[in-house]
Amino acid sequence: MSLDDVLARIDADLPASTDRLVHLLRIPSISTDPAYKADCETAADWLVDDLQSLGVDAAKRPTPGHPMVVGHVDGDGPHLLFYGHYDVQPVDPLELWDKPPFEPELQDTPKGRVIRGRGAADDKGQLMTFVEACRAWKAVHGQFPCKLTFFFEGEEESGSPSLVPFLEENAAELQADLALICDTGLFDPRTPAITTMLRGLLGEEITITGPDKDLHSGMYGGIAMNPIRVLSRIIASLHDDQGRITVPGFYDGVEELSPEIAAQWDALGFDEAGFLGEVGLANPAGEAGRSGLEMIWSRPTCEVNGISGGYAGAGFKTVLPSKASAKISFRLVGAQDPWKIRESFREMVRGMVPADCEVEFADHGAGPASVMDTSDPAFETARAALSEEWPNEAAFIGCGGSIPIAGYFKTILGLDSMLIGFGRDDDQLHSPNEKYDLESFHKGTRSWARILAALR
Amino acid sequence: MSLDDVLARIDADLPASTDRLVHLLRIPSISTDPAYKADCETAADWLVDDLQSLGVDAAKRPTPGHPMVVGHVDGDGPHLLFYGHYDVQPVDPLELWDKPPFEPELQDTPKGRVIRGRGAADDKGQLMTFVEACRAWKAVHGQFPCKLTFFFEGEEESGSPSLVPFLEENAAELQADLALICDTGLFDPRTPAITTMLRGLLGEEITITGPDKDLHSGMYGGIAMNPIRVLSRIIASLHDDQGRITVPGFYDGVEELSPEIAAQWDALGFDEAGFLGEVGLANPAGEAGRSGLEMIWSRPTCEVNGISGGYAGAGFKTVLPSKASAKISFRLVGAQDPWKIRESFREMVRGMVPADCEVEFADHGAGPASVMDTSDPAFETARAALSEEWPNEAAFIGCGGSIPIAGYFKTILGLDSMLIGFGRDDDQLHSPNEKYDLESFHKGTRSWARILAALR
Repeated sequence: MSLDDVLARIDADLPASTDRLVHLLRIPSISTDPAYKADCETAADWLVDDLQSLGVDAAKRPTPGHPMVVGHVDGDGPHLLFYGHYDVQPVDPLELWDKPPFEPELQDTPKGRVIRGRGAADDKGQLMTFVEACRAWKAVHGQFPCKLTFFFEGEEESGSPSLVPFLEENAAELQADLALICDTGLFDPRTPAITTMLRGLLGEEITITGPDKDLHSGMYGGIAMNPIRVLSRIIASLHDDQGRITVPGFYDGVEELSPEIAAQWDALGFDEAGFLGEVGLANPAGEAGRSGLEMIWSRPTCEVNGISGGYAGAGFKTVLPSKASAKISFRLVGAQDPWKIRESFREMVRGMVPADCEVEFADHGAGPASVMDTSDPAFETARAALSEEWPNEAAFIGCGGSIPIAGYFKTILGLDSMLIGFGRDDDQLHSPNEKYDLESFHKGTRSWARILAALR
Repeated sequence: MSLDDVLARIDADLPASTDRLVHLLRIPSISTDPAYKADCETAADWLVDDLQSLGVDAAKRPTPGHPMVVGHVDGDGPHLLFYGHYDVQPVDPLELWDKPPFEPELQDTPKGRVIRGRGAADDKGQLMTFVEACRAWKAVHGQFPCKLTFFFEGEEESGSPSLVPFLEENAAELQADLALICDTGLFDPRTPAITTMLRGLLGEEITITGPDKDLHSGMYGGIAMNPIRVLSRIIASLHDDQGRITVPGFYDGVEELSPEIAAQWDALGFDEAGFLGEVGLANPAGEAGRSGLEMIWSRPTCEVNGISGGYAGAGFKTVLPSKASAKISFRLVGAQDPWKIRESFREMVRGMVPADCEVEFADHGAGPASVMDTSDPAFETARAALSEEWPNEAAFIGCGGSIPIAGYFKTILGLDSMLIGFGRDDDQLHSPNEKYDLESFHKGTRSWARILAALR
């Protein structure tokens, strides 16, 4: 029995595995809306039943919110923990869906066959690629490739309130050698990727108070300090004219790419003009002299996510406002320390607030970047296995956003994660008409079989 | 028969004149709320009846909104046009009123006797000071002091939509030598004032568009230009570090105070610390080297009245917004040209918008400052008359806000205006528990008698 037999079994089973996914997609497991609580339970039960049918020792595990599903199979070789989530995003605005979101169906499109429905790509379809790879393996070999832990969450789309306590309470049970997370995408439809660096996030809100009440700008305009003016000066000072962030000490812990990673990224042929053109832009706005991929993956940022002050409704009101606020976030990389940066940022802001004004800060979270140890040979092994399945060679890539689960696996379980997924940019995640390409599902399943064969 | 007889008559008639005002205050003539349309008609009818009872040829004059009241009496001497408004502000929030707003009553307070009720100071009480002065004059002399036109508006608190068309259609009928407007305040409880300079106003709204949709700051943060960053840089550049406004040509037409006016303002002993302390501030924020009164009366300003962009609700959302906007107003003085400043401002802003972003402008009105010709001897005559009535000498003062009626009288009727009023800073205009001091009403009436005696 060989890997080829497993791949052949996956190919032959595709109609049945697609049917199973369609079944799971019919369950409206919207975690953020209490009206769908029972549906979340149903989705968890469905997964427990499916794992048990494969011989996995699986159970639904209660939490104060929606249940986790945990399953174990013993075996030789490395112990891999696989993570996915069975909950989905809400479907509003429903009128923008071409078909009911929980009546999934296969559709032929100019770009190929897709499975259309809420959760198809995020994350039920991705989660099932791994389960189907294990199913085929078991069918061919009569046993699983190695020691496995399956770990499925039901609150990923609603802030994962139960995740950290559950990991802490069950840390011993969830021990493994390496985590596999299937909730990311391909680099492009021909190029698979392993995400090995995830930016961290520091969220801050600053509120400047000038006068102690809203004033009439006729009466007080000119003599009273306007907090929007103060706030704008602060924001304008956060970047220098080279696009670098001016918070003192901000770049401590930011590292240059290794030559190997730099070469892999160059080989990706990132279409910067296309990426920006998609959103109506043409000029990269980051640090001078950095490539587009560096700007979104390996360089830190400072963005204003929201600003408010005074009258912003229709028409005009000549108010001189008492307060102005901004929500500001920093994406962090490498070994940047979010807590040190918070203090430095706050000190810098305090230094720009005139004597008459006050500043208040609100803390909206802080988490460092996750940087995987790619010197672990498992990473190169998995990259080679992925490269076998897809037209282009796989690359170790970055991710501009934060995927908190990878950080929690590291800090709570001491586990590095390999983030491997098969989504495409046009999957409409969190939006109407979400889809997952049948090719993503099929070749994703085959990819996991190859990776399991290589890692065991 | 002398002025003293008229003043004595005013004193003797105070209980009756107060009763008349209370009558007028009972009519809930809220112009902005269609539910009170009939009450606005009732208030206009009440005024027509009262003027007719004095022998004025008065009539209610229809408009597409609430009616005007116009009355004429012939006579010798200068022809004076008197303006006031009979409509009032809404009363929300009603629960903050100590008494029902349209059940006016006399109350004794630590600062003296007041008439409490919506419209007491703005503007029914002020309007009636002039009517009562005329009533006393007529009672004593059997005729009016000079040729008079009474002109009362019913839409001042709702944007005066019918005012300009009415002035234009009736320009010939409303011709006079000088306008008297009673809708301003005393400088302080002991010091009367004639407002001779009113700042103009230019309102602009700028909207910066970066990406053509809201983006996720994880995915695009660092490479996509954030329009809040662009907007903040623009706003931060509008003032230099001396507090001067940087729009090219902005100060063209701004004049220094004459020595006479500067001396009058010095003599007012403006309590800058108290004025700022009232609103929780301590440091004047205007141009370096300017006095507080200059900052609010005779120097131009630039204020951001509102700013918005991205997510400003509770919590945090890591959006990189497509748009950011600000409402910006300029208070103008002297001969500043609002239309030239608009063009210069827009050109400056366009020059700061990076290639990738777009800027749109919305026009929220433009009006030049009103500067009265105080070389007309009537101004010094009226100032001397006012000084006779009050403890301190009267001054020609400025007003930081715009009073559009004075501009319209100038541009449509070719009339200079004397703005004389008797309100106090604590009258709670537009707020719950509005009041007018009985002293303002009584001495205000006496003031008009003195001014009429001096001007005729």
